[in-house]
Amino acid sequence: MNYTEKINVLIEALPYVNRFRKHIIVIKYGGNAMINSDLRHSVMQDILMMKSVGMIPIVVHGGGPFISQMLDNLSIESHFVDGLRSTSEEAMKVAEMVLSGSVNNDIVRTFNHLGGNAIGLSGLDDHLITVTKKKVIDPDSETQVDLGYVGNVESVNTLLLTNLIQADYVPIISSVGIGSDGHSYNINADEVASAVAIALGASKLIFLTNTPGLLADSQDPDSLISKLSIDEANQLIENKVITEGMIPKINCCLEAITNGVDKAHIIDGRMSHSLLLELFFDMGIGTMLAHSNDDNKEV
Amino acid sequence: MNYTEKINVLIEALPYVNRFRKHIIVIKYGGNAMINSDLRHSVMQDILMMKSVGMIPIVVHGGGPFISQMLDNLSIESHFVDGLRSTSEEAMKVAEMVLSGSVNNDIVRTFNHLGGNAIGLSGLDDHLITVTKKKVIDPDSETQVDLGYVGNVESVNTLLLTNLIQADYVPIISSVGIGSDGHSYNINADEVASAVAIALGASKLIFLTNTPGLLADSQDPDSLISKLSIDEANQLIENKVITEGMIPKINCCLEAITNGVDKAHIIDGRMSHSLLLELFFDMGIGTMLAHSNDDNKEV
Amino acid sequence: MNYTEKINVLIEALPYVNRFRKHIIVIKYGGNAMINSDLRHSVMQDILMMKSVGMIPIVVHGGGPFISQMLDNLSIESHFVDGLRSTSEEAMKVAEMVLSGSVNNDIVRTFNHLGGNAIGLSGLDDHLITVTKKKVIDPDSETQVDLGYVGNVESVNTLLLTNLIQADYVPIISSVGIGSDGHSYNINADEVASAVAIALGASKLIFLTNTPGLLADSQDPDSLISKLSIDEANQLIENKVITEGMIPKINCCLEAITNGVDKAHIIDGRMSHSLLLELFFDMGIGTMLAHSNDDNKEV
Amino acid sequence: MNYTEKINVLIEALPYVNRFRKHIIVIKYGGNAMINSDLRHSVMQDILMMKSVGMIPIVVHGGGPFISQMLDNLSIESHFVDGLRSTSEEAMKVAEMVLSGSVNNDIVRTFNHLGGNAIGLSGLDDHLITVTKKKVIDPDSETQVDLGYVGNVESVNTLLLTNLIQADYVPIISSVGIGSDGHSYNINADEVASAVAIALGASKLIFLTNTPGLLADSQDPDSLISKLSIDEANQLIENKVITEGMIPKINCCLEAITNGVDKAHIIDGRMSHSLLLELFFDMGIGTMLAHSNDDNKEV
Amino acid sequence: MNYTEKINVLIEALPYVNRFRKHIIVIKYGGNAMINSDLRHSVMQDILMMKSVGMIPIVVHGGGPFISQMLDNLSIESHFVDGLRSTSEEAMKVAEMVLSGSVNNDIVRTFNHLGGNAIGLSGLDDHLITVTKKKVIDPDSETQVDLGYVGNVESVNTLLLTNLIQADYVPIISSVGIGSDGHSYNINADEVASAVAIALGASKLIFLTNTPGLLADSQDPDSLISKLSIDEANQLIENKVITEGMIPKINCCLEAITNGVDKAHIIDGRMSHSLLLELFFDMGIGTMLAHSNDDNKEV
Amino acid sequence: MNYTEKINVLIEALPYVNRFRKHIIVIKYGGNAMINSDLRHSVMQDILMMKSVGMIPIVVHGGGPFISQMLDNLSIESHFVDGLRSTSEEAMKVAEMVLSGSVNNDIVRTFNHLGGNAIGLSGLDDHLITVTKKKVIDPDSETQVDLGYVGNVESVNTLLLTNLIQADYVPIISSVGIGSDGHSYNINADEVASAVAIALGASKLIFLTNTPGLLADSQDPDSLISKLSIDEANQLIENKVITEGMIPKINCCLEAITNGVDKAHIIDGRMSHSLLLELFFDMGIGTMLAHSNDDNKEV
Repeated sequence: MNYTEKINVLIEALPYVNRFRKHIIVIKYGGNAMINSDLRHSVMQDILMMKSVGMIPIVVHGGGPFISQMLDNLSIESHFVDGLRSTSEEAMKVAEMVLSGSVNNDIVRTFNHLGGNAIGLSGLDDHLITVTKKKVIDPDSETQVDLGYVGNVESVNTLLLTNLIQADYVPIISSVGIGSDGHSYNINADEVASAVAIALGASKLIFLTNTPGLLADSQDPDSLISKLSIDEANQLIENKVITEGMIPKINCCLEAITNGVDKAHIIDGRMSHSLLLELFFDMGIGTMLAHSNDDNKEV
Repeated sequence: MNYTEKINVLIEALPYVNRFRKHIIVIKYGGNAMINSDLRHSVMQDILMMKSVGMIPIVVHGGGPFISQMLDNLSIESHFVDGLRSTSEEAMKVAEMVLSGSVNNDIVRTFNHLGGNAIGLSGLDDHLITVTKKKVIDPDSETQVDLGYVGNVESVNTLLLTNLIQADYVPIISSVGIGSDGHSYNINADEVASAVAIALGASKLIFLTNTPGLLADSQDPDSLISKLSIDEANQLIENKVITEGMIPKINCCLEAITNGVDKAHIIDGRMSHSLLLELFFDMGIGTMLAHSNDDNKEV
Repeated sequence: MNYTEKINVLIEALPYVNRFRKHIIVIKYGGNAMINSDLRHSVMQDILMMKSVGMIPIVVHGGGPFISQMLDNLSIESHFVDGLRSTSEEAMKVAEMVLSGSVNNDIVRTFNHLGGNAIGLSGLDDHLITVTKKKVIDPDSETQVDLGYVGNVESVNTLLLTNLIQADYVPIISSVGIGSDGHSYNINADEVASAVAIALGASKLIFLTNTPGLLADSQDPDSLISKLSIDEANQLIENKVITEGMIPKINCCLEAITNGVDKAHIIDGRMSHSLLLELFFDMGIGTMLAHSNDDNKEV
Repeated sequence: MNYTEKINVLIEALPYVNRFRKHIIVIKYGGNAMINSDLRHSVMQDILMMKSVGMIPIVVHGGGPFISQMLDNLSIESHFVDGLRSTSEEAMKVAEMVLSGSVNNDIVRTFNHLGGNAIGLSGLDDHLITVTKKKVIDPDSETQVDLGYVGNVESVNTLLLTNLIQADYVPIISSVGIGSDGHSYNINADEVASAVAIALGASKLIFLTNTPGLLADSQDPDSLISKLSIDEANQLIENKVITEGMIPKINCCLEAITNGVDKAHIIDGRMSHSLLLELFFDMGIGTMLAHSNDDNKEV
Repeated sequence: MNYTEKINVLIEALPYVNRFRKHIIVIKYGGNAMINSDLRHSVMQDILMMKSVGMIPIVVHGGGPFISQMLDNLSIESHFVDGLRSTSEEAMKVAEMVLSGSVNNDIVRTFNHLGGNAIGLSGLDDHLITVTKKKVIDPDSETQVDLGYVGNVESVNTLLLTNLIQADYVPIISSVGIGSDGHSYNINADEVASAVAIALGASKLIFLTNTPGLLADSQDPDSLISKLSIDEANQLIENKVITEGMIPKINCCLEAITNGVDKAHIIDGRMSHSLLLELFFDMGIGTMLAHSNDDNKEV
Repeated sequence: MNYTEKINVLIEALPYVNRFRKHIIVIKYGGNAMINSDLRHSVMQDILMMKSVGMIPIVVHGGGPFISQMLDNLSIESHFVDGLRSTSEEAMKVAEMVLSGSVNNDIVRTFNHLGGNAIGLSGLDDHLITVTKKKVIDPDSETQVDLGYVGNVESVNTLLLTNLIQADYVPIISSVGIGSDGHSYNINADEVASAVAIALGASKLIFLTNTPGLLADSQDPDSLISKLSIDEANQLIENKVITEGMIPKINCCLEAITNGVDKAHIIDGRMSHSLLLELFFDMGIGTMLAHSNDDNKEV
């Protein structure tokens, strides 16, 4: 590549840099992007780049596969009800240990070794995330099932995050919350990301997923829907274009947008540097949700 | 107890409250005080009391027994050389997971549920604790042994701690550090506590141990040495009154005192509320080390 | 007392310390607690304890008996109308001199000698308390009487107090105000205390008096009413249970509570360390007034 | 006076306003300027003018004649040794009451009624002025005499003054200090003024006196010495041109200049608006002391 | 002049100094006061005096005669339509160069050489003044005329001015603005001054003009109207007492007063030190406009 | 270009962005980069990019060719002595007008229209640059020649620049200074840039020139010397490799490096986006001067 081309890349990125300077951007980190070590490295570079040019990234992560593996290793049983892990006290100890002590530390270490200054957090720190017990109906038996230590986000304590942001740190948050019973609870990381984005008035909420985005035909990767208004999303849910697996994620997006977050994105975490592509260049990738399609121009 | 007696307790405590207001006090938390749940609760109450009256407590902890247990559960072997755990990559993953995800979270959760505002940290957060690889000579073979991921504290990044203290949080630090190779290292928690106390210019460094303090005769609990100057301590080491097991801890104390920490204490963590007794009342408990015996009056 | 009992005293006090940390507590200081030197010393210790654990005490005082004595010594006549001292220009000069130069200085000196950092103030300082001339009807002649330099509080300049509090001082305020005529005026210290508490949004207003509190039967010290809502207080006034001498003080309490102060207390200043007993322990003493009885739980 | 003349007055004053903007100027207030009510009013106007144009005035006062009068009224005896009042405990109570409760309040009230924002202080407030007992030799008996509660300035706590100055207040300080015995002590106000000026690094120390300044011939008011270097002053003392009455005041000036105060002035407080004349115009009045005569140009 | 008279001048000025301390006063500088070098010097002294006593002066200037001269020197033609200079691209380059590089620099240099700390600005700096193209109807042809680069004020960016004021600088603003086309535009300086005064919530807007103020009879200098309410001004316009030349300036005054500026003044810039006379003395000069005549007392 | 290539460009730039975040970089702007409008636009984009990613750019400019043109247009004669323009009072008025009113405004306008927030300054603003008269010897006549208003930098007032930088502005400084005689002086812009870089402790000083950098053989553009230590530079001057035209610029570089500036660069301003190429990519362009060659690695 000659130098003119290089320069043009920077020139293309410039308005985006200016547009999102000092804006809070919450990234839900998960899927292959967390499991594959090359992708993990590329995501950390992207977040460092965001931070370097003045954006304010905040990372929220879960870690289901790692929890499952450790439960297996320790021969602790657990089962799923309607996609949610039923979490006994014993399983919760393992889940918390894996999320806060293994997954979170790995992210913090990788990011800081690249030159960053991340701080690992869980919802326990200064009551960052308080929860209530999640109530679910088993779709099979149609009775309410006790899932154990699984929680819904009740509140996000923004003071801690604001303090850390002002001191120029990058918070990395594991999806563990604290109940009024003083117990730790497992929470769906998508819900945590959405709640954090809302509580902080973030400009963007970005989900790194194992899909290219929302597909009009889930079998056809070329059927990507790039932009979606609230009305359109609801229409697609009604029309069953958005199907079961995707519905909770889309709902997290809609929840965020309805409550003050500017844009929500579902992008392909399996693609190297997908965050940079989305944030710094004209092309955009994945699916962007906004209040209306008029809001859909970024710069 | 009648009300006059109650008042007298507060009046007795008043000069200590004033003496240590806005002073940093580093507590090395470990031993039975960490394992026994009643003691754990009483330690957390004590730290909350310290915080409530204006002192600045910082907690450093290890968690050897919990690590051993988990390594066992996962059937990962490990052995000790000269009292130090040889730590393979696999073992280190477990150690970090247990320290940062289990022990640390338990402390933070217990403390915050009592009304506190702790923040859990490890040495990875913003490069809080950087380490170099520990070099040891095996006393048996007299050759240098590779212990794997075991580190010596190289530096403590006080900026993060200062930020958190100014924002009124209580930092809880697990004894995991980061090497220049970007890897996590296990560190002796006594050494971390001493390094943190020195780096912050703490007024006190307190070790919660499974002993009443330093004993002139290790078999006789009534032979407690209440006060010790640097010179006296060195004399006792030379005279082999301080014996092998206690030497590293006394050395951590001497290191701290020599580098600007006012007082170091070895107190009995098996005793309920030993911190309050030491900090708020005339009696004092355990062994206090100071530069010279002239410094040994607290108020 | 053994050490467990001592610890229990602190543990009992802990929630109160936390509850009132950084809360403003206005103390009307007067009666025997001001005249008896042992009591004076105990009150000053109590206030120092409040300050030491992070509360924000503010002291307001009068000094009627000392003024009377000095007027006598200087052979200046004065008389009372409906409980209020008729104050000539000559008498006002003496009153101001005694309040600001003798009583106030004595409090400041005693408190600071114990290790405190009080600042003595009068209502003249930066127009702290402005007054209007008090208008009274002589109950005997039923005509309006000119009481001379006796004032009602018109405004409290909170800026000065806020500045001093932020700089960590304890303000000691004598009940002298300034009129729009540029003259000093004598003010009832209970009214000053209430006005200061309201202006600063204090959490508590505490009157140190020569009674155990409000008595259902003023002849029976065991008939103490511990808690009182606004409605109940008004009922008791209507029913003449609260009689003439106590009415102005109760009115100062009601005024405060109605205007944003959380609780008002009438406690026994003749009892040593009554402030500590009230503020740090479960028992409580004297009479506490709150909006409704639901508000009557302190911790 | 026509408008050109008016303007010229301001233009003449301009460089002085600029020269002393944000400079601390300590004024020892006493003599006729304090007793005569017209002069008092004019001094207060002058200080308000200084404050209005951005200077930082601090007032120190004594009040000997008022104390004597009150001691007389109360039939309390006192006598003088070598110009210092021997002060019994009883007399000290009166002195403190008069200085802090009468003289100080009068100054604060007058100044604030003109629109100022003075705060009255004594040396007790936050240990503003600590003292040691003054030791004197009776010139008659040549033996050491116990003068009772008469003190020498030991330290000035600048923190309180700095806080008040930054919050834009004018401190008015009565010459009462606190001993290590917790007792109040009477101090010579000239010495307090000099100590305060030194402690704050004032630009000027101005004594308002009942003389036109230092006279070469004390009988001849036209023999005013306008400027004086340290060397010249010492020469004049040696040559007995500066005679007994004036020596302590000159020594206070020399003490100040030697310890970092730029200029010390002895001016005629019997003259209306003498402060303005000295501070705002080319003419200057009274006697100015500076390190050397080279320093004697003001603008 | 004797010293009593001098003092009286300061005493007369004192309430005005206090009245306008920390108040923003916008001065439109132009006419003879800008051309005549003695007057220029006297205006700069006046502004320095304002600054020295704590007022916050802001200067806005145009420079028509200097622009005309330079256009002549460079043989660039320009003509006027309805009192407005038709400004070609070539003429605008000259106008900007003269206003920002010659007139502005001269003011800044003169003021700073007197000891001030002015910062020269134009409307380009941080988009201080944005403009829209001015639309005019030629009164002769009754058609709309393109005047080229002549603008109306659209917005004033107060952030820059607030920053400079807080850092204690005196802003000197040339009447050049920036259009949304990125081009410089010439603006009427009276309009800029009015817009700046409104945007900053100034206390006063003062026009230095070549008239004694508003005259009831423009031929009779003794017919000065000293005070004018909004209603009266509108009445006088209707009655054609205020005639064509004066109408735009009066409108700028009315615009300012209607939008939160306290007072607007038209004073005689041909008179030496007219600003000081207006601002510091009882007499007042020129014409003062206020909301109603009740507002017309200054102190 | 595919997306991987784009990403690689950002990834390559990342360490440079981090390296120079919050570093001050002084750019001497001149030559073709100022005259050619496309280049001007590209330079402004580059500076905006620097600002956007957190660097602190400061621009210093002269404008010789524009001054010459205007002097011609106005038929004002001027001549050069030893490369310096002899500057009469008349010529200086023109020089100042062109530099501060035309060149400076053009830069500010272009930069701000791109979305920047530049503030135009000259050395007059708050005495930013004070000068002494330059003394030169005419090489022909070997006598001292009076060049009129040509100055050497005496001091740089960093307070103004620090204020503006902290408020997030980009200062654009024209090379006009103020003498102690209150007159404006023309200064060589290279010297101003060097003095500003030294005064602010800049990390870099970059000269945009009409050369590719320093050439070993001035006729051979391929003979570029990329890196140069102080010793090497002095050697090259001695060996006459660095010839007359380049010597003053090299001396400005050496002056800067010797006085605390990290690196000085001479780069080719005729090349589009040369600043970005130098600052954001591994390749580097032009000649870099550093203390020693060990310092020559940038990231």
